[in-house]
Amino acid sequence: MKALIMAGGQGTRFWPLSRELYPKQLLKLGGGHTLLQETVLRLDPLVKPKDIFVVTSNKLLVDIKSQLGELGKGALPDNIILEPEPKNTAPAIGLAAVYLAKSDPEAVMAVLPSDHLIKDRAKFHSTLKKAGAFAKKGHLVVFGIGPDKPETGYGYIKLGKGVGSGAHMVERFVEKPDAKTAEAYVASGEYLWNSGMFVWKASAILGEIKRHMPELYKSLKKISAALGKKDEGKRLADEFAQIKPESIDYGVMEKSDNVVVVKASFDWSDLGSWSAIEDVIPPDKDGNVVVGRVVDLDCKGTTFYAEGRLVAAVGLTDMVVVDTADATLICRKDMTQKVKDVVGVLKQKGYDEYITHKTVKRPWGSYTVLQSGPGYKIKRIEVNPGAKLSHQMHHHRSEHWVVVAGTARVTNGDEVINVHVNESTFIPMSTGHRLENPGKVPLQIIEVQNGEYLEEDDIVRFGDDYGRS
Amino acid sequence: MKALIMAGGQGTRFWPLSRELYPKQLLKLGGGHTLLQETVLRLDPLVKPKDIFVVTSNKLLVDIKSQLGELGKGALPDNIILEPEPKNTAPAIGLAAVYLAKSDPEAVMAVLPSDHLIKDRAKFHSTLKKAGAFAKKGHLVVFGIGPDKPETGYGYIKLGKGVGSGAHMVERFVEKPDAKTAEAYVASGEYLWNSGMFVWKASAILGEIKRHMPELYKSLKKISAALGKKDEGKRLADEFAQIKPESIDYGVMEKSDNVVVVKASFDWSDLGSWSAIEDVIPPDKDGNVVVGRVVDLDCKGTTFYAEGRLVAAVGLTDMVVVDTADATLICRKDMTQKVKDVVGVLKQKGYDEYITHKTVKRPWGSYTVLQSGPGYKIKRIEVNPGAKLSHQMHHHRSEHWVVVAGTARVTNGDEVINVHVNESTFIPMSTGHRLENPGKVPLQIIEVQNGEYLEEDDIVRFGDDYGRS
Repeated sequence: MKALIMAGGQGTRFWPLSRELYPKQLLKLGGGHTLLQETVLRLDPLVKPKDIFVVTSNKLLVDIKSQLGELGKGALPDNIILEPEPKNTAPAIGLAAVYLAKSDPEAVMAVLPSDHLIKDRAKFHSTLKKAGAFAKKGHLVVFGIGPDKPETGYGYIKLGKGVGSGAHMVERFVEKPDAKTAEAYVASGEYLWNSGMFVWKASAILGEIKRHMPELYKSLKKISAALGKKDEGKRLADEFAQIKPESIDYGVMEKSDNVVVVKASFDWSDLGSWSAIEDVIPPDKDGNVVVGRVVDLDCKGTTFYAEGRLVAAVGLTDMVVVDTADATLICRKDMTQKVKDVVGVLKQKGYDEYITHKTVKRPWGSYTVLQSGPGYKIKRIEVNPGAKLSHQMHHHRSEHWVVVAGTARVTNGDEVINVHVNESTFIPMSTGHRLENPGKVPLQIIEVQNGEYLEEDDIVRFGDDYGRS
Repeated sequence: MKALIMAGGQGTRFWPLSRELYPKQLLKLGGGHTLLQETVLRLDPLVKPKDIFVVTSNKLLVDIKSQLGELGKGALPDNIILEPEPKNTAPAIGLAAVYLAKSDPEAVMAVLPSDHLIKDRAKFHSTLKKAGAFAKKGHLVVFGIGPDKPETGYGYIKLGKGVGSGAHMVERFVEKPDAKTAEAYVASGEYLWNSGMFVWKASAILGEIKRHMPELYKSLKKISAALGKKDEGKRLADEFAQIKPESIDYGVMEKSDNVVVVKASFDWSDLGSWSAIEDVIPPDKDGNVVVGRVVDLDCKGTTFYAEGRLVAAVGLTDMVVVDTADATLICRKDMTQKVKDVVGVLKQKGYDEYITHKTVKRPWGSYTVLQSGPGYKIKRIEVNPGAKLSHQMHHHRSEHWVVVAGTARVTNGDEVINVHVNESTFIPMSTGHRLENPGKVPLQIIEVQNGEYLEEDDIVRFGDDYGRS
């Protein structure tokens, strides 16, 4: 079996911890791994690393690649399928199916979100195997979740005739119901939640796309014909530019008469909003979840997630408080679905705290903007042992570098020098330069930029270890 | 008339905006002036600047002096009476009375808190004049506030026989009552709130201290005898070391039979907790007070006070949210009295966000700690035009300075150089150095400290414009 992990999702519901360029799948919410990494690890040993593929967009590529690399699973970080632009799940799945079908049209592929929580790996595997068996027979298979409350945030699946233990033909998919309908569905016992996890043969899903989304299929055929040829990239971009965004649920699943639903025997949470954090971190006896430096007096049922700053609270009941370096969210727990509206308001107001964190990960390490003012910007830069930034130049700024930990190898014009702790150097404007950590411990430098224009896009790259020049 | 402004108060109730070293009286809550400055300005023209005295403690001296200086009222910043250590209000008032009595025992002095809000200056002056007339006759006078709700946070004053329009002898002072008693007091019409504002002759309050606090009086006599002599400082410190802390209310007012209460005709708020911020900044139509970069969805009756970072809130009702560079407070509006308990917990846990802000004011400007890590600390330093830091030396750290605005004159060992925008210099360990702004615009530098010990007390001062060497 092959696995396709869908990792192109936007980061609105877990703002301010998630950002547009750092969405939920990249977060470590509870344990030592990110949700994306846990999704990969959860497949072991059922699916081999070489058979795991991750589909995402270009703007998340660096972080996805770096997180996959951290798992030390061979070529896994190279198994990334890039959508030229986000067009919802149907085109992304179709693209991946085209890639897989090229070498083996009969390949069975499991399609898995990268940001869900499943703890019981053994039961997950047995459900996957059962689904795989139906997929091999040519069915589309969806995992259904036994509903434990009348949730109005999910789609439901009406069960048709039984086709095996815990498996039914799907009578129909229904979109998010109202509260009353949801109650009736749960009471009837004839409905399961749509988990968004699927298993099918590449040829089967392509066949259904051909039937129900002929326009998309035409584009996919053209892409397939170009695979491995020198115009592959251009063809892919051109086709994606005109593909209509559509979800696989609406585009295919709701229309197909060949869908089997397999009831999941494992625990599951889609972590759809901050109120679901309790699925990851169990509340204490007062119902509070407390992460970070928090002083809480007379609080109950409240989640505190503080990344580093101090948070103090008095008398809160059933709230969520999330504190990051540059933004704080306080939200009634039963209104956490509205966090995405907050992000909408930020965009509208031009507040850029929805885009990135103050600390931005890079393939070579990270940087943090400590402060900026008229004509200057101060960054703390951390470079991993052995890593180097691109050989670059800025037209509008000069840079002072002070090393505060480790040793830097600095190319400054034609000169290459080592700069040690408590030493500094100066990079004039329009001078080619490169920063490298030749040592065994992380290099930390403080950079003071001076200039009339201090944005990230004032950069001319001459050479780069990460293909960005 | 002379005025004594009590400005030694601790900053617990308005945390995190107030800090131990930056209490409420130093804050600009609404307008262009701080509460201390407004207290001074409110006396104009009734009390001349030379007759206004401010009593405070050494640790607040620099800020108090600087705020008084900003008002441009001649020698006012020199009229500061320093308590050697805080011993509550009775010793502070006694000390001030001793100073004033030295030149004129019959001087009438108004004792005024530095952190209350009074908007109607004309009515304030007419009440002060009325009180002054009773004080001249030898009475102690207290301002009573007509209670508009059964407040349990204030002391009450029971009215005795009338001695003029809006003036009564005090029958007795009563400490903070419970809710039921407070209701009965308000309903009876026979009680006023104790405002903590007093008027009396220096000789009169010293006479009452002699009667009711003989130990304190003995100490004050010794201090009085030492005034203007060379052991004045030592005597003051020795006596204060043994003086028992006591409030003027408990020590004198509750025991004296010579107190007149004059009913205040002016508006008044003691700004006793965050819920009183509405007295300074009127709420909008949803009952929200919004200061700073705030996104509030479905909130009502909620106060947002954000100094600079972004705060987003969904569904809050009757809350107070205060956000500063290093700490956030979220508190139910009816529990804002508990903010002082939060500060208690911070002390206990060793979290130092109760002491200072990230930006610390200095007589020459300010500094902000941008980040610190093992072996390094980064500060942004702003020096006012014409100001200079002390000539100093550090045993445990070297400093890199990068100028990002203005021009610095730097003494570095035996050398004096000018450092301009986008230039840097390096101060080695154990080297005498001095930073000065010789220019006409604020000087801003980024300082990167390296060393094994980076606290403020690693400083040897050779010379200082502000008397700190």
